Amino acid sequence: MKSVVVETPGKIAVVEREIPAIKENQVLVKVKAAGICGSDVHIFHGKNAFATYPRVVGHEFAGEIAKVGDQAGDFAVGEHVVVDPVVSCGHCYACRIGRHNVCTSLHVMGVHEDGGFQEYVAVNADQVYKLPADLPWEIAATVEPFSIGAQVAHRGRLSGDDTVLICGAGPIGLIILQVAKMKGARVAILDLEESRLEKAKELGADMIINGNTTDLVDAMKEFTDGLGFNLIYEATANAKILATCIRDLPSQAGRVVVLGFTTQELPIRQVDIMGRELEIIGTRLNNHRFPEVIDWFKAGSVKPQEIITHTFPFEKAAEAFQFSDENPDKVLKIILKF
Amino acid sequence: MKSVVVETPGKIAVVEREIPAIKENQVLVKVKAAGICGSDVHIFHGKNAFATYPRVVGHEFAGEIAKVGDQAGDFAVGEHVVVDPVVSCGHCYACRIGRHNVCTSLHVMGVHEDGGFQEYVAVNADQVYKLPADLPWEIAATVEPFSIGAQVAHRGRLSGDDTVLICGAGPIGLIILQVAKMKGARVAILDLEESRLEKAKELGADMIINGNTTDLVDAMKEFTDGLGFNLIYEATANAKILATCIRDLPSQAGRVVVLGFTTQELPIRQVDIMGRELEIIGTRLNNHRFPEVIDWFKAGSVKPQEIITHTFPFEKAAEAFQFSDENPDKVLKIILKF
Repeated sequence: MKSVVVETPGKIAVVEREIPAIKENQVLVKVKAAGICGSDVHIFHGKNAFATYPRVVGHEFAGEIAKVGDQAGDFAVGEHVVVDPVVSCGHCYACRIGRHNVCTSLHVMGVHEDGGFQEYVAVNADQVYKLPADLPWEIAATVEPFSIGAQVAHRGRLSGDDTVLICGAGPIGLIILQVAKMKGARVAILDLEESRLEKAKELGADMIINGNTTDLVDAMKEFTDGLGFNLIYEATANAKILATCIRDLPSQAGRVVVLGFTTQELPIRQVDIMGRELEIIGTRLNNHRFPEVIDWFKAGSVKPQEIITHTFPFEKAAEAFQFSDENPDKVLKIILKF
Repeated sequence: MKSVVVETPGKIAVVEREIPAIKENQVLVKVKAAGICGSDVHIFHGKNAFATYPRVVGHEFAGEIAKVGDQAGDFAVGEHVVVDPVVSCGHCYACRIGRHNVCTSLHVMGVHEDGGFQEYVAVNADQVYKLPADLPWEIAATVEPFSIGAQVAHRGRLSGDDTVLICGAGPIGLIILQVAKMKGARVAILDLEESRLEKAKELGADMIINGNTTDLVDAMKEFTDGLGFNLIYEATANAKILATCIRDLPSQAGRVVVLGFTTQELPIRQVDIMGRELEIIGTRLNNHRFPEVIDWFKAGSVKPQEIITHTFPFEKAAEAFQFSDENPDKVLKIILKF
């Protein structure tokens, strides 16, 4: 079989490998489609502190069951499935309190261990979720990024009563927008790329804010009558924007959900947290949110096709990565097809 | 009647005033005991940004029903009650989502309006909670500070499975300690005053940390086997300690609860929040927690008498404030008796 390997930062290759053997609690998945995430690009550029090399990247992937282990449960060859890339220990503090996505021994497929950019993957059965057979493969590959939307909705206690700001209209920002609109919230969204803001408008954003031309605090005053946003998603990883989100933009009882993971320091003040009972909430990966997303897809409550802008055959992964780097104004989600 | 008035910062006087009239939804409370809080001292020193002058301070007070308004409900003259000082609008976003303690139009008795350091107070009936007639008055006056303990337990989702750090062993730190031990958590507590740490030890602290002689990160490693504290209460308002609490001390899925409200800036990093799904949680006043505290007092689950160190007749409030300023090593809670 063929695997897409980031051998060292900056060097990607398609190599021949053995089809992996499965353990009795595993299934073999024949990958059909896989999405390229910003974090795959970061690993390619050597900018992900968690990754080691060589690494088969890819944590957004779907495919067919090709083989079923004796203890893997109710799966049949040919079934369409998607794989949750989060692997946890099951007994540390985070796992005990139901937060396996921040397990002390967390492993993420495509980051800490080999992932989905290969023709076959052996996966623990408890990471595998069945899909309707008529769901297109490229849509199936977006269950994982939509699981981030589900996760951040839970983390921020998103409700239809909320006035929301999303900073960043990339794929994740646009997914959060869809989830927020599905729940009935009023949503403003910030970006610097006009094309992304136009997409946000199409997806129902109530206000689009181009950070090049509009002051964020002014936008808040206009959109919330000066009361502040109840819920803010910071998905740009820009420390200066996050500092503004914490200091100037939240309402009383507001929440600021942090998706970025830069190491840059930003200044915050206790008074801005205590006075409003503000919550600054980290969010990482997803916590068993695949079933919820699959239900959304079945019901047609979200539009995953709207974030897919390009497809490449997986053998051209290197070109796809380069295309993504060179066309930030055009690319949202690239799907590799197998 | 006599009222204790902070006329301007630094100037306190006992003045003669009319006994207040009550509205039909109010009761008149004849104050019997009232606690001096750090925030009363801050108002006295002109260091509370929320307060205006002249102000009758005091938000920790209990007394007898002296008069009942026509629409005030089921109260009888002579009943023992305690008053929740939090007044909210009932219809803003925070109130709608059940967070009236951070109401957009929040008023706190003793801060934004006159409080409990006077012989009679007119209070809305929905702020008044009945007490057992045999509860000593000075204990009754501690329901409000214990409501802070109840509030921060809810805000931090404190459970018996948690390993907790409390920064600050003043009255509030020692109350949080009692609540955490009541719930079965393991607790370490930090202070600079040895006498307060000794009190913490008596109240069941599993580790006491004198910040003058022990490094907080070393203490974390020893107490948590390097895994970090699940729940941290920052009650010193020291920006440097809070920065350490966020960066170096939490576990995966940890929570840092912020009680202070200084305006000093502290540096934080997104990676420390996102990587652990950390939550930095503001907490303010209490959100309808009086019934819970009264249940604790009835059941004997906490020891309010342990935080009361001194009593003064209310006419000597000026002396009590001065004594508090001059004896930080001896004073925990001073009760004014009426």
